[in-house]
Amino acid sequence: MHRTKVKVVEEALDANNTIASANRSDFDRAGVKVVNFMSAPGAGKTTLLERVVADLPGVRVGVLEGDVQGSMDADRLASLHVPVTQLNTDPSFGGECHLDANMVRSAIPALPLDEIDLLIIENVGNLVCPAEFRVGEDTRVMVTSVTEGEDKPLKYPLMFRACELVVINKIDLLPHLDFDLDRLLYNIDQVHPDVERIVLSARTGDGLEAWREWLIGVAAHEEAIA
Amino acid sequence: MHRTKVKVVEEALDANNTIASANRSDFDRAGVKVVNFMSAPGAGKTTLLERVVADLPGVRVGVLEGDVQGSMDADRLASLHVPVTQLNTDPSFGGECHLDANMVRSAIPALPLDEIDLLIIENVGNLVCPAEFRVGEDTRVMVTSVTEGEDKPLKYPLMFRACELVVINKIDLLPHLDFDLDRLLYNIDQVHPDVERIVLSARTGDGLEAWREWLIGVAAHEEAIA
Repeated sequence: MHRTKVKVVEEALDANNTIASANRSDFDRAGVKVVNFMSAPGAGKTTLLERVVADLPGVRVGVLEGDVQGSMDADRLASLHVPVTQLNTDPSFGGECHLDANMVRSAIPALPLDEIDLLIIENVGNLVCPAEFRVGEDTRVMVTSVTEGEDKPLKYPLMFRACELVVINKIDLLPHLDFDLDRLLYNIDQVHPDVERIVLSARTGDGLEAWREWLIGVAAHEEAIA
Repeated sequence: MHRTKVKVVEEALDANNTIASANRSDFDRAGVKVVNFMSAPGAGKTTLLERVVADLPGVRVGVLEGDVQGSMDADRLASLHVPVTQLNTDPSFGGECHLDANMVRSAIPALPLDEIDLLIIENVGNLVCPAEFRVGEDTRVMVTSVTEGEDKPLKYPLMFRACELVVINKIDLLPHLDFDLDRLLYNIDQVHPDVERIVLSARTGDGLEAWREWLIGVAAHEEAIA
């Protein structure tokens, strides 16, 4: 009996990846580099943006704010005169705990892509599902705060594996915590060996220069990173 | 034309609630009170259990540990000679970011219900989806850490609304943070007026007695609370 070999086209069956690729094409065409910015609630994503978005020489930044509801973070950033677009997962998407490619797609018409070089997509605060959904980004960054404990890479490995940069925030609190920074770095290496990392305090400004330079590097990159 | 009124039985169509009710019946029959314990990653749930589970006079505690993967928290608690059962959402359930009633149901045969009075179910660290799924609990508790910022009730209102007690943890760090405790309490009142709250530090022990007494109260309660 003659059997035809069935070719399985896995990627094409994944609707999220299909839409993410379409988003990516739109961003590429506009010459905009895109960062998917993720963390647990309260790790300091918005503060890390407040500290640098208005001060990246040669880089015009826009922000897409993902939240279950409300626009508090967007309001904080808009006061810095950076174009901010709010994307809520509650009214339109049923209170989703993450952004997916289709939600981001729905926001593209509202983004000033011609006026920016770098789009930072602040995802919903969550260490699980955001790592599972590409949204059309060039690169992914996650923030872990030293107040969250050293064990988070081992408990949420997909998130630490999915990103190209780990930002370790709130190091100004180290003297007041029972926290072993070397243990955290060791645990990160267990799940994502040699992933780039920046240790900083958004509050004191310690280490912020490296974060600023990293973002400038993403915007300047000719080829897609990931 | 005669029309028969159609009775819509909404609850019966919700599979999660159906299974949660079955879990609840099993727990009731065994005389076990159940707490669904939730927070963002790193807010201190496991430490809050470590501090009290072996020291609740007259109450035999068991813990069901929910994690995406690994058993680190379960190992920490087992060392206190408390019966701990691990429930991972990764291998069996596809890396879910929350526990649901069916996952808890699958763990019931492994629980020593005859040997405990109070079962504490430590949910996956996440401020969104765990609040959407009843698992058969009598009452729900969430922990928010002061390092997460004052805005969390407004950004994750369902979680703050879903619980009967809000534990505010890590107050030992207040002198080192730009954090306004009154603002957090005000924001909690905006989404869940007058919900019970306990302000404490799992690290220093300040306020732990109220947490211990609250758990003893749940175990002693004759009637179901919620």
